[in-house]
Amino acid sequence: MSVSVFAPATVANVACGFDALGFAIHEPGDEVIVRKSGTPGLRITNITGDGGRLPLSTEKNTAGVSALALLTETGYAGGIEMEIHKKMPLGSGLGSSSASSVAAVVAVNELIGSPFERGELLRFAMEGERAACGVAHADNVGPSLLGGFVLIRSYDPLDVVQLPVPEELWCSVIHPHVEILTEDARNVLRRRIRLEDAVVQWSNLGGLIAGLYERNYQLIGRSLNDIIFEPTRSLLIPGFDMMKQAAMQTGALGCSISGSGPSVFALSRGEEKAAEVAAAMQTALTKAGLESETYVSSVNRQGPVVRIL
Amino acid sequence: MSVSVFAPATVANVACGFDALGFAIHEPGDEVIVRKSGTPGLRITNITGDGGRLPLSTEKNTAGVSALALLTETGYAGGIEMEIHKKMPLGSGLGSSSASSVAAVVAVNELIGSPFERGELLRFAMEGERAACGVAHADNVGPSLLGGFVLIRSYDPLDVVQLPVPEELWCSVIHPHVEILTEDARNVLRRRIRLEDAVVQWSNLGGLIAGLYERNYQLIGRSLNDIIFEPTRSLLIPGFDMMKQAAMQTGALGCSISGSGPSVFALSRGEEKAAEVAAAMQTALTKAGLESETYVSSVNRQGPVVRIL
Repeated sequence: MSVSVFAPATVANVACGFDALGFAIHEPGDEVIVRKSGTPGLRITNITGDGGRLPLSTEKNTAGVSALALLTETGYAGGIEMEIHKKMPLGSGLGSSSASSVAAVVAVNELIGSPFERGELLRFAMEGERAACGVAHADNVGPSLLGGFVLIRSYDPLDVVQLPVPEELWCSVIHPHVEILTEDARNVLRRRIRLEDAVVQWSNLGGLIAGLYERNYQLIGRSLNDIIFEPTRSLLIPGFDMMKQAAMQTGALGCSISGSGPSVFALSRGEEKAAEVAAAMQTALTKAGLESETYVSSVNRQGPVVRIL
Repeated sequence: MSVSVFAPATVANVACGFDALGFAIHEPGDEVIVRKSGTPGLRITNITGDGGRLPLSTEKNTAGVSALALLTETGYAGGIEMEIHKKMPLGSGLGSSSASSVAAVVAVNELIGSPFERGELLRFAMEGERAACGVAHADNVGPSLLGGFVLIRSYDPLDVVQLPVPEELWCSVIHPHVEILTEDARNVLRRRIRLEDAVVQWSNLGGLIAGLYERNYQLIGRSLNDIIFEPTRSLLIPGFDMMKQAAMQTGALGCSISGSGPSVFALSRGEEKAAEVAAAMQTALTKAGLESETYVSSVNRQGPVVRIL
């Protein structure tokens, strides 16, 4: 028996919810396939789609680290082989390492008889994030694992809140072909922020969450502002201002950086508008001389997809 | 014809929603009575309950300033007499000036034939706040005018969001007999805050708002944390730590400073628990040698009460 799990990409921060909020989209994402083997321990036997950049060593690979955290806690002593099929760009700001970690823990959990419920897997997937970027963030792994919008209310103790998803909310993502390391994107942040800016930011986060519950698309749009991080982080993304302008002129509800970039997301009401917005953003970026790919997706309420092969 | 309006006291900030969130309670509050007179202009003829501290001069009185802002915009040229009956302590952190301003604008609007809808009165009442504390805050006038929990999503343009009120949510307020000027309470605040603290604060605000929509009392309780302002502002409130400890040990969902203090509020599930919590807080304060009064109230969804006399 093999278990295949596809875990979705995610948009973290969502303009006003830095390190606190994220949502899942339907594509891209990563696939992990696991099967039992006669050799004890967890081995990564194959990685595709990474251009040879990811380590096969279990202890150095984020998916491996996450799966090992799970296996260690269960005391499982058998052998497991793991394949990782990257179906999304690395370093894109779309939660690439999170998608692999989530797919890995969901797959391994399924393979060994589901000792944990879905939500309990979060802390294992977070270990992969700790390996990838030094801090066990949950604003990508949370929505990739649980689907929909996820608020990380607290890390200590871990407390995640699943928020409602308005049905007509669609996301346009554009991934410009430049790479930004999460670490570099965090280095341009100030350690201290102005109190008055923080008030604006948390008022917008409050408005965004209220808008999700109210299914109020206009309120969601008015709340999608990031006055603290976007002004500096967007400097690392060529053509950002033109893309955002194109998105807003085309009728997006809001537009900002996905995670730490370089991907940029926009939220719109309805599939048609989201497709128009994605096209307008890509056209703007092409004018700036940069290649890119785009994804148009409703917000993914489903999370990981498990297939028994 | 006279118009009497009672406008309720309010709890602003609500732990994690500094300058962004407030809610109304049923008592205390202020009453304003207006009637037409033959002498053109707005005159304050009587103020009770203020111990002689509030100015009769219309241009210096927050209720007068708010009412004048409304009358100026309408171009109303007749005469109006106004009585202000303070039924709550001044400088208590319970939105005393806001209650007067809200009662005044609602009363005057009613008296001259209701040219404005309820929500439109907010910007006039905010002028009273500007007169009282130099900044046109809305986190007290908003809930006093509209009832319930009110989020100030944005000031420019003004955008307020009314949040749902879980039916069993009750508030205990204790007002220690010390006075803190809003200005002094703001002076102990830092102009810049740590980014990591801001993330904790806005994650909690997100959790609180989700908790209100979900009617999830435990989530509301877990979210009622203020790690930025309470640590310094509470130093100005004698016995704060003992009161908070008493509230939490008695089973309150959360406890923090009301507005800029010195009043302290706790939220609990149900009237009985809220009454126990109020008693425990008062006992703790009495041990610290301070007198106080307490108020126990469900969250006030009604806002101002208008009576035609």
